[in-house]
Amino acid sequence: MHLRGFTNPLSPTGSASLVEPPPHHIGSDAIRVLFRAGADLARRYLPEPLEPVEDGVGFAFVADMIKVSDSDPDQAFTSPRRTQYGEGIIGFYATYRGEPGRFSTFIWVTEDWSMGFGNVMGWGKKIGEVRRTHINPYNPAMGPIGPGTKLSGSVSRLGERVLDVGIEITEAIEASQMPAYGNRGFLLSHQPSPSPAVPTRTSLLGLQLSNVRTGDVFRGTPHLTIHDAVNEDLALLRDVEPFAAYAFKQGWTTDTVAQVLHDYPPEQARQGVGEGA
Amino acid sequence: MHLRGFTNPLSPTGSASLVEPPPHHIGSDAIRVLFRAGADLARRYLPEPLEPVEDGVGFAFVADMIKVSDSDPDQAFTSPRRTQYGEGIIGFYATYRGEPGRFSTFIWVTEDWSMGFGNVMGWGKKIGEVRRTHINPYNPAMGPIGPGTKLSGSVSRLGERVLDVGIEITEAIEASQMPAYGNRGFLLSHQPSPSPAVPTRTSLLGLQLSNVRTGDVFRGTPHLTIHDAVNEDLALLRDVEPFAAYAFKQGWTTDTVAQVLHDYPPEQARQGVGEGA
Amino acid sequence: MHLRGFTNPLSPTGSASLVEPPPHHIGSDAIRVLFRAGADLARRYLPEPLEPVEDGVGFAFVADMIKVSDSDPDQAFTSPRRTQYGEGIIGFYATYRGEPGRFSTFIWVTEDWSMGFGNVMGWGKKIGEVRRTHINPYNPAMGPIGPGTKLSGSVSRLGERVLDVGIEITEAIEASQMPAYGNRGFLLSHQPSPSPAVPTRTSLLGLQLSNVRTGDVFRGTPHLTIHDAVNEDLALLRDVEPFAAYAFKQGWTTDTVAQVLHDYPPEQARQGVGEGA
Amino acid sequence: MHLRGFTNPLSPTGSASLVEPPPHHIGSDAIRVLFRAGADLARRYLPEPLEPVEDGVGFAFVADMIKVSDSDPDQAFTSPRRTQYGEGIIGFYATYRGEPGRFSTFIWVTEDWSMGFGNVMGWGKKIGEVRRTHINPYNPAMGPIGPGTKLSGSVSRLGERVLDVGIEITEAIEASQMPAYGNRGFLLSHQPSPSPAVPTRTSLLGLQLSNVRTGDVFRGTPHLTIHDAVNEDLALLRDVEPFAAYAFKQGWTTDTVAQVLHDYPPEQARQGVGEGA
Repeated sequence: MHLRGFTNPLSPTGSASLVEPPPHHIGSDAIRVLFRAGADLARRYLPEPLEPVEDGVGFAFVADMIKVSDSDPDQAFTSPRRTQYGEGIIGFYATYRGEPGRFSTFIWVTEDWSMGFGNVMGWGKKIGEVRRTHINPYNPAMGPIGPGTKLSGSVSRLGERVLDVGIEITEAIEASQMPAYGNRGFLLSHQPSPSPAVPTRTSLLGLQLSNVRTGDVFRGTPHLTIHDAVNEDLALLRDVEPFAAYAFKQGWTTDTVAQVLHDYPPEQARQGVGEGA
Repeated sequence: MHLRGFTNPLSPTGSASLVEPPPHHIGSDAIRVLFRAGADLARRYLPEPLEPVEDGVGFAFVADMIKVSDSDPDQAFTSPRRTQYGEGIIGFYATYRGEPGRFSTFIWVTEDWSMGFGNVMGWGKKIGEVRRTHINPYNPAMGPIGPGTKLSGSVSRLGERVLDVGIEITEAIEASQMPAYGNRGFLLSHQPSPSPAVPTRTSLLGLQLSNVRTGDVFRGTPHLTIHDAVNEDLALLRDVEPFAAYAFKQGWTTDTVAQVLHDYPPEQARQGVGEGA
Repeated sequence: MHLRGFTNPLSPTGSASLVEPPPHHIGSDAIRVLFRAGADLARRYLPEPLEPVEDGVGFAFVADMIKVSDSDPDQAFTSPRRTQYGEGIIGFYATYRGEPGRFSTFIWVTEDWSMGFGNVMGWGKKIGEVRRTHINPYNPAMGPIGPGTKLSGSVSRLGERVLDVGIEITEAIEASQMPAYGNRGFLLSHQPSPSPAVPTRTSLLGLQLSNVRTGDVFRGTPHLTIHDAVNEDLALLRDVEPFAAYAFKQGWTTDTVAQVLHDYPPEQARQGVGEGA
Repeated sequence: MHLRGFTNPLSPTGSASLVEPPPHHIGSDAIRVLFRAGADLARRYLPEPLEPVEDGVGFAFVADMIKVSDSDPDQAFTSPRRTQYGEGIIGFYATYRGEPGRFSTFIWVTEDWSMGFGNVMGWGKKIGEVRRTHINPYNPAMGPIGPGTKLSGSVSRLGERVLDVGIEITEAIEASQMPAYGNRGFLLSHQPSPSPAVPTRTSLLGLQLSNVRTGDVFRGTPHLTIHDAVNEDLALLRDVEPFAAYAFKQGWTTDTVAQVLHDYPPEQARQGVGEGA
């Protein structure tokens, strides 16, 4: 194949690819709210054979993200927008054969290249509006982030609000004091069939992030509203109970080193098609 | 698998899927400019074994599109935005073993669900701004579309202009007078590997559209500017020669009935990765 | 003054002006839903001395708009985006000294130049997302607009839904059968003071449109939802009763020929400032 | 007047006003590039009687901005998007009767409320896309901002690039080492006439900011590209010479306390109208 690129569109030099090949070095400035859904409800949002943890602990997350592609280390200078994205997530902590991790059932990002990379890996991203509080301590009405600071974030899509999270910071804590529930991601790769000759391929993957570093961690009072928006499937989650909130910064490296944990038979996956409309 | 949906994100009811399952009934209000690139240049933008037609005839296209999903026929009323998208294309006419069709090397659309469906089928879509002239004959300064009307369209991405097309209409013609170069689409399905255990899968597909109907066809003087924008691969196409322009409306039905024409060995496709950064 | 332009930013040649000088020739493809709010409620949304009509008849409107500036008649070809905007309105019919007209209390548009021109004239426009159903009769699942067609429109702002309107068309009617309530606009010019030396200036204006032409008029069953969104003042209107809906196309010419009907004392206008926060 | 609000749209409670009344507390995270245009060219972009400084020193600026309205101190938590905007400026340093300050000939912002407040004060803002480099030191490929860091910013509008600025940081400096050219803003209030009975009002204002505080200041090598985009008036500035670049954070308070420096006769201002089209 003489056309080149990590992803479509392939082209003569490869420069049109939606996103550069991994590794991607990631930085996150995040608000995370933990909630309890109950194990039965959590199980409905987790692909089998993942199992909920505790009483169905889930998370809602809104962050400003920065990606530096290993192959284009100067991109934050040459093309800033290709290195920045907003991200919102609603997901659940889970175990696979007893090993812990997290599954991001719903992900919204602001940039097409992040959505496209999600499709490569098995993160089911959509494009949404993602906004969170920014603090500038030189603003005469603001101070440094600390106890008393209030931060919020939101996701909207199709002109409707989907998610609101917030934290009223009560104290600075060590990174080790923030519960991690494992630092492995579970991913659901799902490639619908374009042709009678090509089966739908659906697999559960596990991805270990590397170079993880966390800091500027704060704990506080949580705020959470999950909305029943069009083209989502959130109605059942409207009444989950938030019980903790964290603001933090984190960095890591993502690479195409996922492990295949489980392959779903094509017929199973396709059963959902007709009813999913 | 108890999670449902045609595409990710899979969810309990399937209602969160980025897009509804096909068939999709499509309507297009389009400007198409034909250009000659020369066969050698066209070949650089076509996946082998596709062959250019004539002296490398290509097309630039900007259109307002409407999609009605067969499974949600009321969506244009209940959620208009999920049925509308702007689309711009730069592609080439081509033959596969002598059979004609067209290959859309670069596609920009305005909506995530259209981009995601492109990934299912093998259209390498990105999100861009797509705009074209609208005419309202009740505007005191406008009349009906006809000889003398001037229409234009453009694509921008990442804050830069990518494509400008235009037509100064000279005459109404019959749909049969507009060259078709076959009405089959060639698609390049390309699923990069997320894991050492999963090969990159790259295939050339052929897709026959059905229910094709064309009308309100006009011929005119072409305008075309292809820009050398960031994260594209268009520099070589800046000087192609436009030779015809058409404005028209067209409808058809798209379904997941592609034929697999050619599978590329994974090693070949991966060769592009490193150099494509 | 050697800097030039109809509006700011003034510049050496005037080409940077946010919008071209009027006359502006306008075309509208609109959905209008009439509602009854009760006279007392309507009066709260009308600047004195305007008086409600009947039992407080108001209108909700969503349209695709096209503007052709008299001074740049080719702009729909040379720069389409500067000629297109989406517009949503919630307003009330009213009389001034017994003469009928309409007052657009809330207006959302998609383009900055339309918002800026609103400020020149006295339309209090904000930027919002405005979308309405589009029909393409070549789409295999669509037909021409007529009895049975369902059209909707919406406005969102700041990631929240503000307004939904809809019509289920029952019959084609003559333009003369659609109630007009006068075709004069009442405008509220309001220029807050930037300086202790410059008073806030608030005036009620009347504007007669010219070249009005209406067609493709349909009547139908109305749908209306007014949302209580952030940074709006719509909570009181959530329960108004829709009683009629029209889909239609209309054209007219707007010029800077408003009449001053009423000047408000600066103190009065400024009283609102502190409490309006 | 019973309708309330600082700006249009006025409404029963005032909550729909496009922006809250000042004072506004502002924080800026900025890149500023200084350039020389020559005094004659600078004069063409300055309203008389402002005079250029030195050999026509101008500035190009791209920043992430945060506004906290004194009347709604919690807004960064309750509605973050209403407190954040991106801003790009091309302007010139100038003197009025020997007193120094700066005039922002062209301003692009990302939010309607910022544009509307600009119109109140005399900043000729348009809506544009504004993006700048973000750094997250937890990203494995990034470090803290310092010598060697490269930052850039850009403005696009109508799908075309308008402005690129950049800095390659060479050293940290004291705020006092960054040239200020005075810290007063010159504003051009320009309210075009909506009516034969209302004159166009054009005034030169001077505005002193308060609570100014500056820090995190870096000096470096400048990058600057000014593009000749549609609906701008920048062609003459394409070849100006950048000679210094700064990255810095700054805070201040803006209030409606401008002084009127000069009133332009209405006829003069209107002369620009016809030719400005």
